[in-house]
Amino acid sequence: MNIVYNARHAAHAPQQEFFRGRLVPAVDRPERAAQLWQALQHSGLGTERPLRDHGLAPLERVHSPAYLRFLQGAYAQWQALGGTGEAFPAVWPVRTLRHDIEPRNFSGQLGLYSMDNGTPLTAGAWEAAYWGAQAALSGLDALAGQGAGASAYVLTRPPGHHAGRDFFGGYCFVNHAAVAAQAALDGGAARVAVLDLDYHHGNGTQALFYDRSDVLFVSLHGDPLTEYPFYLGHADERGEGAGLGCNLNLPLAAGTSNADWLVALREALACVSAYAPELLVVSLGLDTSADDPICSFSLGTDEFTAIGRSLAALGLPCLLVQEGGYAVEAVGAHLLAVLGGLARPRQGAVA
Amino acid sequence: MNIVYNARHAAHAPQQEFFRGRLVPAVDRPERAAQLWQALQHSGLGTERPLRDHGLAPLERVHSPAYLRFLQGAYAQWQALGGTGEAFPAVWPVRTLRHDIEPRNFSGQLGLYSMDNGTPLTAGAWEAAYWGAQAALSGLDALAGQGAGASAYVLTRPPGHHAGRDFFGGYCFVNHAAVAAQAALDGGAARVAVLDLDYHHGNGTQALFYDRSDVLFVSLHGDPLTEYPFYLGHADERGEGAGLGCNLNLPLAAGTSNADWLVALREALACVSAYAPELLVVSLGLDTSADDPICSFSLGTDEFTAIGRSLAALGLPCLLVQEGGYAVEAVGAHLLAVLGGLARPRQGAVA
Repeated sequence: MNIVYNARHAAHAPQQEFFRGRLVPAVDRPERAAQLWQALQHSGLGTERPLRDHGLAPLERVHSPAYLRFLQGAYAQWQALGGTGEAFPAVWPVRTLRHDIEPRNFSGQLGLYSMDNGTPLTAGAWEAAYWGAQAALSGLDALAGQGAGASAYVLTRPPGHHAGRDFFGGYCFVNHAAVAAQAALDGGAARVAVLDLDYHHGNGTQALFYDRSDVLFVSLHGDPLTEYPFYLGHADERGEGAGLGCNLNLPLAAGTSNADWLVALREALACVSAYAPELLVVSLGLDTSADDPICSFSLGTDEFTAIGRSLAALGLPCLLVQEGGYAVEAVGAHLLAVLGGLARPRQGAVA
Repeated sequence: MNIVYNARHAAHAPQQEFFRGRLVPAVDRPERAAQLWQALQHSGLGTERPLRDHGLAPLERVHSPAYLRFLQGAYAQWQALGGTGEAFPAVWPVRTLRHDIEPRNFSGQLGLYSMDNGTPLTAGAWEAAYWGAQAALSGLDALAGQGAGASAYVLTRPPGHHAGRDFFGGYCFVNHAAVAAQAALDGGAARVAVLDLDYHHGNGTQALFYDRSDVLFVSLHGDPLTEYPFYLGHADERGEGAGLGCNLNLPLAAGTSNADWLVALREALACVSAYAPELLVVSLGLDTSADDPICSFSLGTDEFTAIGRSLAALGLPCLLVQEGGYAVEAVGAHLLAVLGGLARPRQGAVA
């Protein structure tokens, strides 16, 4: 097991976020990644691989240059306007409004490039997210030449899968999984699958590849009728144009039993297998656990182990990128269960 | 001069709103309408006409039934979920996200039906906005049979011109001016013009009629590159389909001189005249004044008087609907200047 750790995640240390229109303590705190890293270091499960800088170009294959430029300078702009603490947007270009002209006003820009106000833009958000993408790319590097059963785990935060081509949201700024998937294609792969196991639908990843046949996106997640991000992740979203049939959403009701979750996982894995990708990227959310403070599934050690074993059974090069998972005291054990199952596959795979 | 007053505006009494991601004191307070009403009562400028209930049907000609249903029950939902104070959304269906499925989750609904978090949804927002639309319709009634030079002024708040077919924003919930314009068409008029003089572009009104030739929308406003609503109101928006040529935006830089503002007014009025409408609806914002706390034009009594005289010179039935104007101490005088110019047109019209 190759491991890449983005220690610069800690540069993004939000204090507050908006929830139901009120400021509440931020959920995506550095402590959760610190716990994951501590658990990993004592596990003997993998070997740390170097974090290398691949520059901006791989990010620009997924995100618009204007958006990336904005992210790099946004906090300085906020400060120059007298803003203190985290920057939050206040107006958004919803339907009938235009998004083809970048306002000169900073508040207008902040809204143009976002989808919610639950994603605190901190002084270090860009640094953390940029290096998260570099970590994902470094994980991809580590897999090169290691064969079909190789795997790499990328530990970073903030997460990435809600970030769209030109907007942040859902704690995400740069879509690390999408950057890695695109880089694999640019490196010669013909087909890449992204399996999103986070509690929340990966709207950013889905939308980025929705009209393409070279990326399969498969997601198990809380039903958007009741769960964030609310406006994408329904079962009828099957892709469009050349991508028709290359998108599979398995929305599950909040409170879904572990047995039913595993049935959905089996369906997702069968879809991945049938696609026969050259690489599997896993958006690994651990917020599906019973301990998670903001989610409503109830996976435990057995199920997380089953995830790992099932991934191993696919026999594909596998790049796992950390997404959500907010039960600080428990996420370490859940991660080790997944990686342990992946490293030591025996009985119990659902695939 | 006919006057219709929606005294129920006071049911909407927000305490706070978001600005740059922070809670600040609400700007659209009942006091501003109370000041306008007090000024009017002592002016001798008009005769109060009855406020009649026309029911929901005229609102449904402009807004989606689902949105109106949501607005009516929204605050009760918020309270049932334990919400206190005003309800504010926190996530929005921007590009790539869907708006064709209403989430069951209240936060998801609140975001689906809004464009910002600067518009506090209070216990009385629906009552105030519903009766605002009824006031506009009652003003229209008052004009019936009064001839080309007749005018009516509708005093209400919250304002309406930012409200879209199915979203609230910019302090607005129901688009009173659009409801009245549509009702005039439904009552037999062939062409209606809407002239929007508020500091902020009337994105809701524009979008509602953008593809239609039976409504001309003309607006003078702060340039959206720097002013709210940021994402609509550019000069290149000329209408589409059958409505091509029936939309004129005259964005003006913050700090525009009064002389330049009056030049733009002249261009707007010439466009209205050329269209030869059977009714002119004016979205009358008074936030263009030098006193306004949140805007950056500098109109004074002379200019407000010139507006009234210029409207009179058009010789059209004219329905003025109150929009913004937040300088509580000064708005009364500005309103009297406009209505005085309209009631006693002499020299000084710019048309």
